[in-house]
Amino acid sequence: MYFIDWCDLNMNPKIEKLVKQFAKLPRVGNRAAQRIVLSLLQDKTGRIEKLVDALVDANENVHACPICGVLTDRSAERCEYCSDIARANSMLCVVRDLSDVWTFEKSGVFGGRYHIIGGLLSGVAGVTPEDLNLANLPARIANEKISEIIFALPNTIEGKTTQQYIMSIIDNANIRFSELASGVPLGGELDYIDDGTLSLAFGGRRTI
Amino acid sequence: MYFIDWCDLNMNPKIEKLVKQFAKLPRVGNRAAQRIVLSLLQDKTGRIEKLVDALVDANENVHACPICGVLTDRSAERCEYCSDIARANSMLCVVRDLSDVWTFEKSGVFGGRYHIIGGLLSGVAGVTPEDLNLANLPARIANEKISEIIFALPNTIEGKTTQQYIMSIIDNANIRFSELASGVPLGGELDYIDDGTLSLAFGGRRTI
Repeated sequence: MYFIDWCDLNMNPKIEKLVKQFAKLPRVGNRAAQRIVLSLLQDKTGRIEKLVDALVDANENVHACPICGVLTDRSAERCEYCSDIARANSMLCVVRDLSDVWTFEKSGVFGGRYHIIGGLLSGVAGVTPEDLNLANLPARIANEKISEIIFALPNTIEGKTTQQYIMSIIDNANIRFSELASGVPLGGELDYIDDGTLSLAFGGRRTI
Repeated sequence: MYFIDWCDLNMNPKIEKLVKQFAKLPRVGNRAAQRIVLSLLQDKTGRIEKLVDALVDANENVHACPICGVLTDRSAERCEYCSDIARANSMLCVVRDLSDVWTFEKSGVFGGRYHIIGGLLSGVAGVTPEDLNLANLPARIANEKISEIIFALPNTIEGKTTQQYIMSIIDNANIRFSELASGVPLGGELDYIDDGTLSLAFGGRRTI
């Protein structure tokens, strides 16, 4: 509906094209895209040039690490995490995308290797095992002498299905599989916890 | 604080540079910038190229209309609004920036000309009359035979100060000055109206 309104705005076509590109970005609506475009075009400090430079540089020189899938320099053989010898080799954390890696890194709770699968199996969305970054996973486990795989996938049907599938293709008795604990978040009040979470927290209750 | 945390993320420098550029945009925080960058870099449909094209095109070929200040094609002598012969010549609406023009155009309440002043006088921010797009305003009023100037500036101290200043430099007895009415918004409940607005609405009460 808002898009139709634009016809009446007499907006300059070049500006409209730019607004539409920004409005396609996640979490950016039409109003925010208009604000962004105006602030960029009215700026005198070369922010557009800097943004364009950064976009072109990242687009041309960043690719997914062939080992773990983390986005990294095309010139580097492997990413920052795969080449960091200080990280524990024996533990591998399976995550959906790079933002999950950043979340772990910010928390500092994990010092092992990552494997980004790039999505979740889904019949509805038509995501099959071939669409995920799984082909090199068995070889990786052997090469890197991994002894524990930690699944940090979303706590949803798709996440759990994907986890089960990955466990089935690895099929190695020497590997310990684990997943993140489910339960009440830190600072969480029981009033605000949904039934599913409460049920998981109750089932996984600890003796103190 | 969040910026400091980035040091621990081991984020690829090219990606970090791009995230920082997006995080500078209005209404885009660090988390949203990370999401945007990931979605762009993981996209296979050439969205980065399209965004870069639109940015470069707008940056090189858009400038402020020399008459009214609306951003328009550099190749055009005047903007869409100034060159539209269907618009009333006698009424001039003074606004702060282009987004205000779009707000008016969306509503369809005004069919005259616009004049974008590009800011508001402010002692605190150090904005002086020379910083505003006012130099050609007196000549414009004479050339275009304008008979009414409608101020649609923010209803703030700066907005009212700017309005008073513009009235003082025009100083033409044949011009009618007007401003947008202040009062209770359509659908506004009195409970949620601040005292200042209520006072203005009371002072401007109409006989029915």
